[in-house]
Amino acid sequence: MLNTLIVGASGYAGAELATYVNRHPHMNITALTVSAQSNDAGKLLSDLHPQLKGILDLPLQPMSDISEFTRDLDVVFLATAHEVSHDLAPQFLDAGCVVFDLSGAFRVNDAAFYDKFYGFTHQHPDLLEQAVYGLAEWNVEKLKEAKLVAVPGCYPTAAQLSLKPLIDNGLLDLSQWPVINATSGVSGAGRKAAMSNSFCEVSLQPYGMFNHRHQPEIATHLGTEVIFTPHLGNFPRGILETITCRLKPGVTQAQVTEAFQQAYADKPLVRLYEKGVPALKNVVGLPFCDIGFAMQGEHLIVVATEDNLLKGASAQAMQCANIRFGFTETQSLI
Amino acid sequence: MLNTLIVGASGYAGAELATYVNRHPHMNITALTVSAQSNDAGKLLSDLHPQLKGILDLPLQPMSDISEFTRDLDVVFLATAHEVSHDLAPQFLDAGCVVFDLSGAFRVNDAAFYDKFYGFTHQHPDLLEQAVYGLAEWNVEKLKEAKLVAVPGCYPTAAQLSLKPLIDNGLLDLSQWPVINATSGVSGAGRKAAMSNSFCEVSLQPYGMFNHRHQPEIATHLGTEVIFTPHLGNFPRGILETITCRLKPGVTQAQVTEAFQQAYADKPLVRLYEKGVPALKNVVGLPFCDIGFAMQGEHLIVVATEDNLLKGASAQAMQCANIRFGFTETQSLI
Amino acid sequence: MLNTLIVGASGYAGAELATYVNRHPHMNITALTVSAQSNDAGKLLSDLHPQLKGILDLPLQPMSDISEFTRDLDVVFLATAHEVSHDLAPQFLDAGCVVFDLSGAFRVNDAAFYDKFYGFTHQHPDLLEQAVYGLAEWNVEKLKEAKLVAVPGCYPTAAQLSLKPLIDNGLLDLSQWPVINATSGVSGAGRKAAMSNSFCEVSLQPYGMFNHRHQPEIATHLGTEVIFTPHLGNFPRGILETITCRLKPGVTQAQVTEAFQQAYADKPLVRLYEKGVPALKNVVGLPFCDIGFAMQGEHLIVVATEDNLLKGASAQAMQCANIRFGFTETQSLI
Amino acid sequence: MLNTLIVGASGYAGAELATYVNRHPHMNITALTVSAQSNDAGKLLSDLHPQLKGILDLPLQPMSDISEFTRDLDVVFLATAHEVSHDLAPQFLDAGCVVFDLSGAFRVNDAAFYDKFYGFTHQHPDLLEQAVYGLAEWNVEKLKEAKLVAVPGCYPTAAQLSLKPLIDNGLLDLSQWPVINATSGVSGAGRKAAMSNSFCEVSLQPYGMFNHRHQPEIATHLGTEVIFTPHLGNFPRGILETITCRLKPGVTQAQVTEAFQQAYADKPLVRLYEKGVPALKNVVGLPFCDIGFAMQGEHLIVVATEDNLLKGASAQAMQCANIRFGFTETQSLI
Repeated sequence: MLNTLIVGASGYAGAELATYVNRHPHMNITALTVSAQSNDAGKLLSDLHPQLKGILDLPLQPMSDISEFTRDLDVVFLATAHEVSHDLAPQFLDAGCVVFDLSGAFRVNDAAFYDKFYGFTHQHPDLLEQAVYGLAEWNVEKLKEAKLVAVPGCYPTAAQLSLKPLIDNGLLDLSQWPVINATSGVSGAGRKAAMSNSFCEVSLQPYGMFNHRHQPEIATHLGTEVIFTPHLGNFPRGILETITCRLKPGVTQAQVTEAFQQAYADKPLVRLYEKGVPALKNVVGLPFCDIGFAMQGEHLIVVATEDNLLKGASAQAMQCANIRFGFTETQSLI
Repeated sequence: MLNTLIVGASGYAGAELATYVNRHPHMNITALTVSAQSNDAGKLLSDLHPQLKGILDLPLQPMSDISEFTRDLDVVFLATAHEVSHDLAPQFLDAGCVVFDLSGAFRVNDAAFYDKFYGFTHQHPDLLEQAVYGLAEWNVEKLKEAKLVAVPGCYPTAAQLSLKPLIDNGLLDLSQWPVINATSGVSGAGRKAAMSNSFCEVSLQPYGMFNHRHQPEIATHLGTEVIFTPHLGNFPRGILETITCRLKPGVTQAQVTEAFQQAYADKPLVRLYEKGVPALKNVVGLPFCDIGFAMQGEHLIVVATEDNLLKGASAQAMQCANIRFGFTETQSLI
Repeated sequence: MLNTLIVGASGYAGAELATYVNRHPHMNITALTVSAQSNDAGKLLSDLHPQLKGILDLPLQPMSDISEFTRDLDVVFLATAHEVSHDLAPQFLDAGCVVFDLSGAFRVNDAAFYDKFYGFTHQHPDLLEQAVYGLAEWNVEKLKEAKLVAVPGCYPTAAQLSLKPLIDNGLLDLSQWPVINATSGVSGAGRKAAMSNSFCEVSLQPYGMFNHRHQPEIATHLGTEVIFTPHLGNFPRGILETITCRLKPGVTQAQVTEAFQQAYADKPLVRLYEKGVPALKNVVGLPFCDIGFAMQGEHLIVVATEDNLLKGASAQAMQCANIRFGFTETQSLI
Repeated sequence: MLNTLIVGASGYAGAELATYVNRHPHMNITALTVSAQSNDAGKLLSDLHPQLKGILDLPLQPMSDISEFTRDLDVVFLATAHEVSHDLAPQFLDAGCVVFDLSGAFRVNDAAFYDKFYGFTHQHPDLLEQAVYGLAEWNVEKLKEAKLVAVPGCYPTAAQLSLKPLIDNGLLDLSQWPVINATSGVSGAGRKAAMSNSFCEVSLQPYGMFNHRHQPEIATHLGTEVIFTPHLGNFPRGILETITCRLKPGVTQAQVTEAFQQAYADKPLVRLYEKGVPALKNVVGLPFCDIGFAMQGEHLIVVATEDNLLKGASAQAMQCANIRFGFTETQSLI
């Protein structure tokens, strides 16, 4: 049994993680923590997320010093803000834990990236070097040895799962940048009071045009530029991405199908559509990324869906943990 | 042309009021104001409510002293918090304006009521005496002479319009209190950032059970006790009330129909259903209160719907103003 | 391992049942069937319910003669229309199966009831006599011996779980009929094309006033009359019931709490709220019925929520099966 | 006063049209008709669309022979299926009416287009020649003389209003086809019972990929190819289009702004955003098309919103009629 700590358990992703750990046969929850300043400190997880009443009535403990929690600790999930993860991860690594970070603090191995896109100076370039990017389907071998896993962003997960097989097989004409239109549920903005999240104000609308942090995350890991336009959708959970790209001349439907099959035929959390494209509702509450496509001539449109809190966050974190520790990849997820 | 000021124009009801005044042939907007402390001061109304872009691009002016706005002023609408209205109404009355207050500050002619249900001590019992309760269909004559109109709460409007014809005609056995189950859209809570309004947190649920302020407002004006259970619904606008009551023995369907017809046949903003009961969507964006009923034996269920921001607030305020100044009752509303 | 057949697996409740059986360690799916006339015959369950893709890709087999499916069959779930269940249940009983019927065909032990409320003449009064009403928390002993289980309707489940402890403990003044206001998600109307289910037409509205079939089901099993007003809500799943009733003079909050505790403290699928009342979202996708209450003087309001497809249908059916066969009551449900 | 007939008044667009005509000071409703076979014949418009109760309680008359309705008739709006419009338009033209057709029957001046994309052979190439395409902002002069107006499709209206100023000013590098991602509310599919419209089945999803009829309509009228991907959204009304295109080298933001200003500064139903991009909710129920954009280097993203039933159908039809008859362009619309 792996003793497991969840830091930042009060949020939507944290609550999902707690559920996964709770039902895991080889992991147990050591503690759920929140910032010592949080108003949620001392409350039960199920006070904030009443769907967990009777299932997970554990307290949210204030954490000011990690040493109160690291004794015999094996695993830490950080469901915290970027800068909090940046500061905590090295401490937990020093304490001998394997760290799964759901923030953006270790996703790109380029310290300058953080000044530019996250507004803080990264102090741990060594950890950037060492961190394994947890796009689980593509990094199995590295994950098995990882000490620090940087779980990808929600948008980047679906975008990369869609594009990587095509790019790696050389099917795309990348002189025309892939156009990624993505729509996310409101939970992607986190659990907080804000006018932008207010029920009467939410409405389908693009945001972060040409300046969302996930654009460079996608571009860096794919090794090619993309145009990424996120939208806020009027639903709580889920992401749908419609990705329009240009095929090299002569690429056939069979080649596209083959590229996806080769990448994912044996991957349990990616579901390929042989005909048609996925709808959002079919992944909500489930750990899958669903992928389908349509093409005409040299134009290819890939459609991918996922639950932003699951394959886009907590489920992928747990998938990485399962791979890291040699458990069944889908343990507790399906 | 009546010079008209809207105080508290930044909220949902204020924006609706501004629209009505703007299209009114006999009123014009002198100014739209917000609290001097508000972050919205200086913004355009259409910055906050972009549906009004190109229609109402007026600035929200900070108001610290009413005298900046009262010159040649004829009419004031107060779409402000209870205590703000309580303080401002006398000042505007002194300045010679007719005041239409959308808050609860002058709805019940009993100063003790405010200590008990609103948490402040009322300083103006004379105005409570003088204020006309703006349940428009029932107070036409008084409205014609009013200086201060207390526009009813959103829930009380639908509840009273439903019950008053039955009670006034002596059809109900009031030893069994009418049970008012009401569900309101989220806009009823106002335009603000709050966890309870957050898109992912909103879910059908009762609130304010046995202690909502609108219960005593309803009971006082009807002269009978009621059980009032408001619910938050997962939609932006509208109220549906399902009111279960007990008829006196022998009361017939014809008598119930007659009571409603007598009260509302010539009232343009109450629509009676001869068969079936209203659905919420048919009043959203419209100034009506729709009423239908079903009965079996001595059991009667009245169903009423309205847009909480319109017949439940701004449209009724304008309806009162139209009556007050001798305009067509529905001017600018339909 | 119990060989299990699901008849009518194409609907929403059928798909949920299939999911439960599929993950059950002591049951396996023999077949999923639909009517031989159905357009869905031959499709995969996951074609209709793509969220099950990769999880449950079994075909929906046309069933014209049950004998094709009864060999070595242990358990049948009937997720079929009332009259279909009425005809099929005796056949499966003759074939030696234990039958769990999710329709209304065997819920009330009074043949005349079916002429009156269901529009057909019941041919199997002996089975009405024999059928066990599957309100699981209240019929454990009978369920252990049952051959035919009539799983309660969705509305009656929440209503009876709310009222039965109060009535059985003699706390209510039933001369005033309890007023049950209930709002259900659209899935309660089944998976079908209909104007009333059409996205743009759905809107909060009462229906079936004074003539919904669930009223007599509730009244019969509780042994008291109730006023039951169902509403269609603008959400896919879930039921919230707000039940206003009259306490006998002198009944205390402690007595009410005690009645609920006594009934459900050890029941894993009823979650009691010590303070506050449940919100709809916290049971969607979960097998629970959540119950809370508020009272003032002799007025008591009980609020109950459940997922209409789960505790209101499939989860309760599986709960009954677990009890019937001696498995853990929540097996496969949590 | 222009005597006006609305054919196909039972649908969502028809009901909106009826509302506009009803409030028009220079038009009056001669009749509202539906197909003689329709189940809606004889009902009131307000039976189908109860929001119109008390406003428009006119009957839906069955029309088998147009001659029953053409006496003294000036104007016809056809809110009918493509092939019905194709057959009726010539008859009404012969009867001397001005015809505004909301279907696709006369939108493209190429008879072969109809065989290919609409599945019927066009019998009236002369009318295709004569029909004026009612993209109102761009065809004012022709509209003034029009006998037959083909009101554009909902998606094409927003797409063309967005792209035409850019193309006409030579700002785009069209060797890279503009990528139009559009999401429409469910009302776009019409008022009908269908599984695809069913409340529980609707979910954000692309459809008609590479084969939607609006793609060739857009491409023909713009004179350039586009990639058009429509999506069904989980809301009743509105369209948001996110259009990604390639600028010619060196094109500046000022040039883009200037192109839009030049086209629309004096157009009352197009609202340009100087900063930011529009959100869907701000056009729902309103006759506007809102347009904003963002750019980076040679990448330009235009975002346009409209109500699919209004600027995308009925409001634009009325706008065309206002222009045709010399009324204020926004008469009855704002």
